[in-house]
Amino acid sequence: MIGDRLQIGLAGLGTVGTGVYEALLRNRSLLEARAQISYEVRRIAVRDLGKPREVALEPGVLTDDWRDLVEDEKIDIIIELIGGTREAHELVLAALKAGKPVVTGNKALLAEHGSELFRLSQERGVPLYFEASCGGGIPIVQSLQTSLICNRVDSIVGIINGTSNYILTAMEKKGLPFHEALEEARMLGYAEADPTLDINGWDAAHKALILAMLAYGTPLSPDKVAVRGIESIDPVDIQFAQQLGYTIKLLVVIKRHANQKALELRVQPSFVPQTHLLSKVEGVFNAIAVSGDIVGETIFYGRGAGKNPTTSAVLGDVVLAMRECRLPDYHTGFHPYAEAMRVLPAQETVTPYYVRFRVKDCHGVIAAISALFARYDIGISAITSRDGADDEEGKHWNYLVFMLYECNFGQLESSLAEIQRLGTVLGEPMVLSIERMGMND
Amino acid sequence: MIGDRLQIGLAGLGTVGTGVYEALLRNRSLLEARAQISYEVRRIAVRDLGKPREVALEPGVLTDDWRDLVEDEKIDIIIELIGGTREAHELVLAALKAGKPVVTGNKALLAEHGSELFRLSQERGVPLYFEASCGGGIPIVQSLQTSLICNRVDSIVGIINGTSNYILTAMEKKGLPFHEALEEARMLGYAEADPTLDINGWDAAHKALILAMLAYGTPLSPDKVAVRGIESIDPVDIQFAQQLGYTIKLLVVIKRHANQKALELRVQPSFVPQTHLLSKVEGVFNAIAVSGDIVGETIFYGRGAGKNPTTSAVLGDVVLAMRECRLPDYHTGFHPYAEAMRVLPAQETVTPYYVRFRVKDCHGVIAAISALFARYDIGISAITSRDGADDEEGKHWNYLVFMLYECNFGQLESSLAEIQRLGTVLGEPMVLSIERMGMND
Repeated sequence: MIGDRLQIGLAGLGTVGTGVYEALLRNRSLLEARAQISYEVRRIAVRDLGKPREVALEPGVLTDDWRDLVEDEKIDIIIELIGGTREAHELVLAALKAGKPVVTGNKALLAEHGSELFRLSQERGVPLYFEASCGGGIPIVQSLQTSLICNRVDSIVGIINGTSNYILTAMEKKGLPFHEALEEARMLGYAEADPTLDINGWDAAHKALILAMLAYGTPLSPDKVAVRGIESIDPVDIQFAQQLGYTIKLLVVIKRHANQKALELRVQPSFVPQTHLLSKVEGVFNAIAVSGDIVGETIFYGRGAGKNPTTSAVLGDVVLAMRECRLPDYHTGFHPYAEAMRVLPAQETVTPYYVRFRVKDCHGVIAAISALFARYDIGISAITSRDGADDEEGKHWNYLVFMLYECNFGQLESSLAEIQRLGTVLGEPMVLSIERMGMND
Repeated sequence: MIGDRLQIGLAGLGTVGTGVYEALLRNRSLLEARAQISYEVRRIAVRDLGKPREVALEPGVLTDDWRDLVEDEKIDIIIELIGGTREAHELVLAALKAGKPVVTGNKALLAEHGSELFRLSQERGVPLYFEASCGGGIPIVQSLQTSLICNRVDSIVGIINGTSNYILTAMEKKGLPFHEALEEARMLGYAEADPTLDINGWDAAHKALILAMLAYGTPLSPDKVAVRGIESIDPVDIQFAQQLGYTIKLLVVIKRHANQKALELRVQPSFVPQTHLLSKVEGVFNAIAVSGDIVGETIFYGRGAGKNPTTSAVLGDVVLAMRECRLPDYHTGFHPYAEAMRVLPAQETVTPYYVRFRVKDCHGVIAAISALFARYDIGISAITSRDGADDEEGKHWNYLVFMLYECNFGQLESSLAEIQRLGTVLGEPMVLSIERMGMND
């Protein structure tokens, strides 16, 4: 039973942990009124007891062993903000097994171990809250769990990595090449010292896995997602996109194919029509479009990362946990309505495509490539080209772009392998899917 | 106590009522899995028992007296979709008094009687759910109640009337005058036979009142809102807006002025910067921007009306009610954190303004008007003009636009009264507030 004051154990006092602790103190009267219970932060687990802290702490509140939180019988709920996956995994497992509800924002943890943790939470009837793991302050998790719950989710398409969106926006608006845009993001604090997971798509892929597990009640693991990053996007692709009426965004695409009992799950830079609201999402902002069978399309927009938005999401969950943990056997947590679904292999996904080649400046190039696409039954909706440059031997080459009608990705790959053998194409082509999204109709 | 199957009473079988009933049957397995309870629609109250229905109904399920729902001891929750305010008011009062949780989408009811009904719900501990009353399928109510709950809401700015947004979009994109755009909306089913409340701003004002009561825990009544509709917007204003970098939208503006302990609450056509996402919301779509002290700005976008989006919102609440009504003394309903706040009189609101005059074609007009603005301490940021036409006497007049820096609306009104007396201004000027909204920064 919960005492008069709910006792919180906080694991982690980094940027977000500090934000959460500060807000728990600063907005106490508001939070207690709205949660209808008073609370106390009983213990805080940190890695280094000696490290100077931005916040004033009562003596004895700190510990350098998270087990002290799990084993403290007085602690009612645990907020996990230590990051990483190894220790966080142990911590969340131990907390759920000890019957303590957990609030976490750890997307890598849930992407890797979500299937196990959600199952454990379900079996033990101990809630696991994870609003902060996807989309920062955007209330996507709770909305899928409550307001939109009567819907079968047809698709979730979103921009859920702020760093890569900042880079793509800077490339488009300022004409910067990728590395300069990344440098700018780093200087402004929008990219971490090691931005690998942001630009190679894996940060977005972690969030995609969580959203897909939530929306479809299906256990999933990272090997199921087709992931491509934005590292190889060239300014010329940004320019072609604009000229053709599109904006390039790193998109997460989760789609249910009911007739195939399959789920499409991919993260890749894509062409978004300039008429769609997602194309207008700039800088570090995130946006997630959810299409439900009843509600149609709804879009959630906001800051996808950073101390404050993430703090807001964590505290939303904390209030929910405070309300719900007075009620045994009750939580709004993870309510799967599982449909047995396989994940569509990348080769089977079907979209229209943008394919940009660098080709030798000679006659018959368009004819030869077009003939090969035709042989693979791939329709061409438009062709455009642009002057390129001279190679080291002084021979000229040009950019050549094909806009293709919907085709199977496996088919496209086969056709491109043959096109490469023509000998008129230089290097690898740039292949970007074109997302068809209905709105404002 | 709730039995094995939760018993639902549905009042109203119009468009939304039918949608809700159909979805309760069609998505039963999904809803029961997610709500973790099975259910039955026990009685449906309608006005006319003899009217042909789109849905097949078991004999005896219909009644033409809503009291049969309230008085039936077996009925656990009531969905109110009869519309109007008189009978709906009686029904909701009676249901709450009978201890039956109510789900409603009735915005006029809550705008007029919300203060009373929310208080009763609170006093009796019987939840009143109202997601469908604001923004159709957009989960704004539940998000304010849960995910965003740790925030003090700084402002809510939104487009929450689809009909007027359709009309303004058609005026802008197709160059139609107001009445032709309204006719088009009517033909497409986007405007009702009597569209008065949509175009005079009162439908939006009802929703604004509900959002303000929810966000600030303050009882409010319709006389507190400053409301203007879109009837008098001229195509020339749409054109000036575009030229100056804005789009005209019917905006709901709710702002907290902490230092004045006051709430700003107005509904009016306004200039929205083309750089802000709200300016891109077209046609019948709605969007609501919420700024919280912790989360920053988040935007919710989707279909704000219509059978399906409203059905989605009603059913989200029904699932919440199903989950929560097994738990006495528990609900996520209306958790006020009231701050004593007065509503700012319209005269005290401060924004920059667009003022468009029709002026006689003679010398010294700009000088005279500028001098009067200066006398009232109102700064001018830009002046632009456009050729007008000849009046009946063959005398020429022109359009003259002043873009004003932030000023008090009362001050502006006084200056305009004096300007009218100059004798060079024809008719009433068009005055539109310019909304400053931060985003993508």
